[in-house]
Amino acid sequence: MADKKMVEAITSMEEDFAQWYTDVVKKAELVDYTSVKGCMVIRPAGYAIWERIQAELDKRFKETGVQNVYLPMFIPESLLQMEKDHVEGFAPEVAWVTQGGLQPLTERLCVRPTSETLFCDYYKNIVHSYRDLPQVCNQWCSVVRWEKETRPFLRSREFLWQEGHTAHATAEEAEARTVQMLNVYADFLENFCAIPVIKGQKTEKEKFAGAVATYTVEALMHDGKALQSGTSHNFGDGFAKAFGIQFTGKDNKLEYVHQTSWGVTTRLIGAIIMVHGDNSGLVLPPMVAPTQVMIVPIQQKKEGVLEKAAELQEVLKNFRVKVDDSDKSPGWKFSEQEMRGIPLRLEVGPKDIENGKCVLVRRDNGEKIEVAFTDLEKKVAELLPQIQKDMLERARERRDSQTYVAKNMDEFREIFKDKNGFVKAMWCGDQACEDAIKEELAVTSRCMPFEQENLGEVCACCGKPAKKMVYWGRAY
Amino acid sequence: MADKKMVEAITSMEEDFAQWYTDVVKKAELVDYTSVKGCMVIRPAGYAIWERIQAELDKRFKETGVQNVYLPMFIPESLLQMEKDHVEGFAPEVAWVTQGGLQPLTERLCVRPTSETLFCDYYKNIVHSYRDLPQVCNQWCSVVRWEKETRPFLRSREFLWQEGHTAHATAEEAEARTVQMLNVYADFLENFCAIPVIKGQKTEKEKFAGAVATYTVEALMHDGKALQSGTSHNFGDGFAKAFGIQFTGKDNKLEYVHQTSWGVTTRLIGAIIMVHGDNSGLVLPPMVAPTQVMIVPIQQKKEGVLEKAAELQEVLKNFRVKVDDSDKSPGWKFSEQEMRGIPLRLEVGPKDIENGKCVLVRRDNGEKIEVAFTDLEKKVAELLPQIQKDMLERARERRDSQTYVAKNMDEFREIFKDKNGFVKAMWCGDQACEDAIKEELAVTSRCMPFEQENLGEVCACCGKPAKKMVYWGRAY
Repeated sequence: MADKKMVEAITSMEEDFAQWYTDVVKKAELVDYTSVKGCMVIRPAGYAIWERIQAELDKRFKETGVQNVYLPMFIPESLLQMEKDHVEGFAPEVAWVTQGGLQPLTERLCVRPTSETLFCDYYKNIVHSYRDLPQVCNQWCSVVRWEKETRPFLRSREFLWQEGHTAHATAEEAEARTVQMLNVYADFLENFCAIPVIKGQKTEKEKFAGAVATYTVEALMHDGKALQSGTSHNFGDGFAKAFGIQFTGKDNKLEYVHQTSWGVTTRLIGAIIMVHGDNSGLVLPPMVAPTQVMIVPIQQKKEGVLEKAAELQEVLKNFRVKVDDSDKSPGWKFSEQEMRGIPLRLEVGPKDIENGKCVLVRRDNGEKIEVAFTDLEKKVAELLPQIQKDMLERARERRDSQTYVAKNMDEFREIFKDKNGFVKAMWCGDQACEDAIKEELAVTSRCMPFEQENLGEVCACCGKPAKKMVYWGRAY
Repeated sequence: MADKKMVEAITSMEEDFAQWYTDVVKKAELVDYTSVKGCMVIRPAGYAIWERIQAELDKRFKETGVQNVYLPMFIPESLLQMEKDHVEGFAPEVAWVTQGGLQPLTERLCVRPTSETLFCDYYKNIVHSYRDLPQVCNQWCSVVRWEKETRPFLRSREFLWQEGHTAHATAEEAEARTVQMLNVYADFLENFCAIPVIKGQKTEKEKFAGAVATYTVEALMHDGKALQSGTSHNFGDGFAKAFGIQFTGKDNKLEYVHQTSWGVTTRLIGAIIMVHGDNSGLVLPPMVAPTQVMIVPIQQKKEGVLEKAAELQEVLKNFRVKVDDSDKSPGWKFSEQEMRGIPLRLEVGPKDIENGKCVLVRRDNGEKIEVAFTDLEKKVAELLPQIQKDMLERARERRDSQTYVAKNMDEFREIFKDKNGFVKAMWCGDQACEDAIKEELAVTSRCMPFEQENLGEVCACCGKPAKKMVYWGRAY
């Protein structure tokens, strides 16, 4: 009876997707709620996923020349106000420190919601000549946005992220860096997180406060809702002019720098859960999984079983492998490992030992595979990349099967009436049409994809000549 | 002329140690000041040192079973107030958030100065049975203490650290973990940072707010001042009782957990600077150094020089090695690499290439070593651990030469009259004597070392029977 408890306690995703999500993050012990409203504890199982993401992204960043730094978490109000669009975008949702020690502050400080202003303040101090460029910095930190509605990983008052901030001598170099980092994100999402993404540009309406252009990678969750999974912004020289960041060029002329910023957050963990999870819990891609293989000894009190489990752990030492030798029943251990999304379970008991083999069970599709001990390492080395590949493929198929085309408003309405998904539609470029669609269907433009398709000549909303193909969706 | 500028701009440590320190952190580009009073930017060269420290400590923590987590940066005032000594210790120096978004908060939140209260709040939720113990968690984050006087790395309003927080079933296990982590710090400081430390216990007066016992590792800087370099606290069940953290033991009885916490901060970077640095700048131990070998090509425009430099970089690929092929002069590059504390400089020019050899220059003692290209890898593999060892040895000798014994107040006064250093003295255990010494000599008790020595039978202050030998010093 007790063996089934963990699984039975999960709501099925077909019944209530939001509740399924909440059940998974709690039962897989990824997060816990706290006495701090709108904030969460990221527990060891959740934080280990973030550490995997950090290590991989940090390596990829550094391969492109990124250097890590740390800037203050506080922004003086006067600094936040220096770029007009930026302050309008963020001021309504920041937390304000008004007292330090026993004294009220003479100027209040906001807890950083993002650090463009601080990086500008820093670059203004250290950039003087073309020799000081480019500056390609990143920081891993937490930021605060005073959200009203919060959900673990997807939207919380404090969240973890990385924010890259760069300064360049030319507009071309800044644009190239903006696109380069979007490509880093897209490749990382597809080939590490097994999440296929649409790469594209945000519309004027949806772009970042203060940016000239915002690029985005958009993913589709199991329930057909979209999740903005990473963004990269080109600021042109707008911030540089507001903050006075100038350098002497090779020609001895004073010029403004061109800047970018780009970031991903712990909501990536939410994306992994909602793209790959199933009704038994989390399903982690092998590259993301902190533990790739969990060895579950069967009848572990019998002589030789725990020894064999330890021996197989040693055989698999090139992978992230653990033995669950706790005093729980095998059935309980099975459902626990399923809940936690561990890619492979290895079962080994007295009979297996007699026969010189064990059983591998794939978390992603439940397949059971008998493997001779002598073939074990080779088999695991084959299976993990196969699972990774299959998970990406399945996610892509599901995404594609939930992607629709709308040629006019009737088709738009029909699609979004009783389902979610991506809708591709032609657009005249007018914000009035974007507003109208958003207003009527409660969906937002996700992006103008880099890979444009010609779905017709006219805007799906107004019927005037179309300029761009746009992805629409309901978003987290 | 320009070649000398970087070096000439540093104040010598004999002339003004504080100014020397400030010059080094600025000229080695470790930090920059910001518009945020009391906070600093940790620049790439500084943050790379912190990344080395993090990676090594994190590995060592995990080997002892530590798991990383992330808890909120905000603490509701009511939560901070639950443990009496703790709130008295921290309330006067925290920053308060009083407004979130456009609304004033109903309860103000402090920005964490340390997270005991949050971990208690968390453990109360997740610890129910002896099976849930021990909890051995750590987080890497920033904390805020509203200091009036600030100095880069040593004391700033926001700083980076790790804070470990554990909960155990028994008092013995908590005590063992407290000591274990102090030993991790001591070993890390000596064998990674090349900083010898005194391990000991803080007096009642100097222990952490809310702790039963505080253990510390104390290091001595070049100027004879002490730096508390890491602390580990045993809380007994005090926090558990204040927060109601109970578990059902194996005997089915309800019991309180026993807790510990332990931390080191970015002030370790300050310690590395002040223990090893010299009048040419930073000197980094090879294990700490983000770059261990800097290759400086001489007459780099001549054919084959840059190619050879690249070839040698490849030969040394098992080390952290870079080539400085910028268009600065070799002399400028030399003083720049000295300023940045890179352990080995490799000089290679046309003549060297002809002769099949190059020159290695040790940063720590200036020694120049001719090495045949064919021996290069072997030589560097020998030299780096040798430098590491020599640096620890020199630091230990300097520390020992600045450690004195005081048998009575006259000897105490004589020593601290015109110098700094550690003073070992016997103590009766009475706080009145501790207060009197602190008051008169402006020094603090650093610790009661684990390795006690018998320097006499009576307290150096009051002449009554002595109970403990204590280290005293002026501290950062």
